[in-house]
Amino acid sequence: MTRHVSDRSAVPAFEVMRILDRIAELRAAGRDVVSLCAGEPSGGAPAAVHARAEQIHAARADLGYTSALGVRPLREAVAGHYGRWYGLDVDPAQVAITTGSSGAFVLSFLAAFDAGDRVALARPGYPAYRNILRALGCEVVEVDCGPAERFQPTPAALDAVVTESGPLAGLVLASPANPTGTMVSREELAALAAWCADHGVRLVSDEIYHGITYPRDPAAPGAKGICAWEVDAPVRSAVVVSSFSKYWGMTGWRLGWALTPPDLVGAVDALAGNVALCPPTPAQLAAVEAFTESSYTEADARVAEFAATRALLLDRLDRLGWGTVAPADGAFYLYADLGEQLAPYPDATAWCEALLEREGVAVVPGADFDAANGGSYVRLSLAAGPEAVTEAVERILRFQETG
Amino acid sequence: MTRHVSDRSAVPAFEVMRILDRIAELRAAGRDVVSLCAGEPSGGAPAAVHARAEQIHAARADLGYTSALGVRPLREAVAGHYGRWYGLDVDPAQVAITTGSSGAFVLSFLAAFDAGDRVALARPGYPAYRNILRALGCEVVEVDCGPAERFQPTPAALDAVVTESGPLAGLVLASPANPTGTMVSREELAALAAWCADHGVRLVSDEIYHGITYPRDPAAPGAKGICAWEVDAPVRSAVVVSSFSKYWGMTGWRLGWALTPPDLVGAVDALAGNVALCPPTPAQLAAVEAFTESSYTEADARVAEFAATRALLLDRLDRLGWGTVAPADGAFYLYADLGEQLAPYPDATAWCEALLEREGVAVVPGADFDAANGGSYVRLSLAAGPEAVTEAVERILRFQETG
Repeated sequence: MTRHVSDRSAVPAFEVMRILDRIAELRAAGRDVVSLCAGEPSGGAPAAVHARAEQIHAARADLGYTSALGVRPLREAVAGHYGRWYGLDVDPAQVAITTGSSGAFVLSFLAAFDAGDRVALARPGYPAYRNILRALGCEVVEVDCGPAERFQPTPAALDAVVTESGPLAGLVLASPANPTGTMVSREELAALAAWCADHGVRLVSDEIYHGITYPRDPAAPGAKGICAWEVDAPVRSAVVVSSFSKYWGMTGWRLGWALTPPDLVGAVDALAGNVALCPPTPAQLAAVEAFTESSYTEADARVAEFAATRALLLDRLDRLGWGTVAPADGAFYLYADLGEQLAPYPDATAWCEALLEREGVAVVPGADFDAANGGSYVRLSLAAGPEAVTEAVERILRFQETG
Repeated sequence: MTRHVSDRSAVPAFEVMRILDRIAELRAAGRDVVSLCAGEPSGGAPAAVHARAEQIHAARADLGYTSALGVRPLREAVAGHYGRWYGLDVDPAQVAITTGSSGAFVLSFLAAFDAGDRVALARPGYPAYRNILRALGCEVVEVDCGPAERFQPTPAALDAVVTESGPLAGLVLASPANPTGTMVSREELAALAAWCADHGVRLVSDEIYHGITYPRDPAAPGAKGICAWEVDAPVRSAVVVSSFSKYWGMTGWRLGWALTPPDLVGAVDALAGNVALCPPTPAQLAAVEAFTESSYTEADARVAEFAATRALLLDRLDRLGWGTVAPADGAFYLYADLGEQLAPYPDATAWCEALLEREGVAVVPGADFDAANGGSYVRLSLAAGPEAVTEAVERILRFQETG
C-alpha cells in the first residue's frame, strides 16, 4: 500500500529558492552575479558574542539542555533590553528564548490558536507566517494592504474582513515589515491593539527588524520601532516576537525570543519543552554579550551602513523609472512596483528571470510575498551593501535601456 | 473580549519538571541531591567538535542561514556514517539536518501526517512524541507494550489496534527506547516494516540512542542498533530520525537529522524552510568533526562508561528487591517496576517524592511515560555516572529499609 504524504506539506514553492539555485549555477559557471536577494545582513555577530562563544568552546564546556524557555541570564538581558529601547519594565519570566523567531512563531501560534482558527495577516507579507499557520491547521486570512495604507493593516480593513468572512482569532503584524519595510506609528499600533482587545483577537507582533530603522531623530522615542507592549496596557496580551538575527546579524545562530502575555506563559513553556526541548545552548550563552555597549555600537554601525545604502538607492529611484515604492521606514528592503519598466514582460517574475540571465542581478519578485497583487513588484535587499547596490542599479539601468 | 488560548496547548505537565524544580530548591538549600533524572549524558561534545567551533568563532565567521536541510559537508558526513555503522549506501540528498531530533520529528510528522491521522506509538514511551503529534492535530493511538513484548510494538498488537479502532497512518518506533532501553531485533524490525508496508503506514524510526548499546559482541552486525533502512528494502519508505545529542553528547547544540524517503524529501525541505529556516549554523559546521576517528573513540569511551554503570546497577538489582525490570539493551536508562517496595505508597510518583525528600535521590516516575500502566514504575538514568549511581542505590536501600 502507498504511504501517506500529508496535504499540509504542500507548501507553495518560492521563486526565491529557484533564483538562489540559479545564482549558484551561474556563479559556478564563472558569471559575476550581484545578489540583492538576501534576507540577512552580512558581517555576522558582534565581536563580543563570538568571543564568548570562542571561550565556551575553548573551555570544552558541557553544553547540555537548558530550561525550555532558556537560561536565566539571557532572559534577564532581553528583559533589560526592553528598558533600554522602550522604557518598558519586562519580567524575565515572560521572556521565552526560542530557536530563532521561527521557533517563537511556531510556539506562539500553537499556544494561541487551534486548528480552524482564523488568523489575519497583511498581504504582501513574509510567506512563512502563512505557511506555518496553514501547516498548523489555522485558516489564514490575508488582508490586502496597498500603498494607501502603507502596506499595513488598519482597523477599518479588519472590520471589513470580519464583516465579510467572520470573526478572527489572531492578527500577525510586522513593523518594520518584510518585504515593504513600512512601520506603523505609535497611534496606529495602539489603534490596532485596541481593535484586537475589542474583538478578542490575539495580536502577534513581529518586531524582528526593530533597531533597523531610518528615523530623522535616532534618539526620539519610538525610533527603534514601537513595541506592542508599549500600547497594550494595562494588560499586555500581545505576543511580541523578536530575534538576534537581524539587528545583531546572527541569522545562522537560530536564536530569538517571544514576550509572552501571562495567560500564554504556561502554554508556551509546555509546548517548547515538547516541540523544541530548548533553544541552542552555545548560542544562548554567547548571546548575553549582544546586550553589551560594544555590541550595540557594532550593530548600530551596521544600521548606519544600511541607511547609507538605502539613501544611495533612493537617490537612484528617479533614474530607475519605477512606479510605487513602499516607504522603507525600516528593515533592509525596498519593495517597488516596476511600473512601466515591466512592460516587455508578463510579470515581475519573468522580469527578474531575464534580469538575472542577462545582467547577473538577482532580486526577488513580489509574487513570493503577495500572490494576489505582487505580480508587478520586486524586493531589493540593502543587506548586500553599497557597492553591490550601486553595481546592481547600473546593471538594471542597462537592462531596462536595452529592453 | 478575552483572548484565545489554544486547546492544543494543554500539554500534560510532567512530573519530572516538578522534580527538577524541587532538586534546584533542595540544592539551593544546601542539600546533597543525587539526580538520576537526566536524559542527557554528561561530558559534552567530542574535543574535535569543540575545537572546530572554537576556530569558527575565533575567525569571527559570518554564520548566516544555510540551506533548509543543512550544509552539504554535514549531509555527506551523515550519509557516510550509515556506511560505517550499517553498511548502507545513503544519498546525502536524503539526509535532512534538523534542529535536534525534535526538529526532525516535527518536520516528519508534518510531512507525513495530516490533522486527524491516526499515529501509533508504544506505551510506555517518550512523552514528547504524543504531545507533538497532538499539537499538530494527529490522533495518538497508544499501544500498550508490556514486559512480554519487551515493551515494543508487534505486528499482532498493531493488528489488534486496527481491528479495534480503525486504520493507522503512522507508527513511531524507538529502538533503543526511552524509558525502557529495549531494542527490536533485525527480524522484529523487518516484520514491523513489512506490516507497515502492507497497511500503508508510514514508519518513523527513532534511532537517537543508536551506538549506546550493550551487545555481547560490539563488532557484530547490528551491534549499534538496526537501522530501519536496512530492512525497508527495496523501497526505503521509513523516516529515520537520529541526533548528535546522545551518542556524541551534544544535547544543547540542538542538532539532529532525518533520513527522508524519496516521496517526503520535497515536503520536508519546503516545511523546514518555513518552520525552522535552517538548523543552527555553528553547530552544523562543527558537527562535521563528530565523524572523525577521535570523536568516535571518545563517544565509544562514554558508552563503555555507561556499560560499566549499567553493570553496577544490574548487580545491585537483587538487593533492591524490585519487580519487573525492562531489559536495557541500549540507551542509558533502567525502567523498573518497584514491586513490593512500592507498598507503603499509593504510586511511584509518591514513592519518588518521598525518596527525594528523605534521601535526596531523584528518579522519574513511570507515569510520565505511561499514564495507563506506569504507576508502579520508575526510570533511572545511568548518565549520572558510576559514583552517582552507587551512592543513589545505597540511599534507595536505606530509604526502603526504613520504610
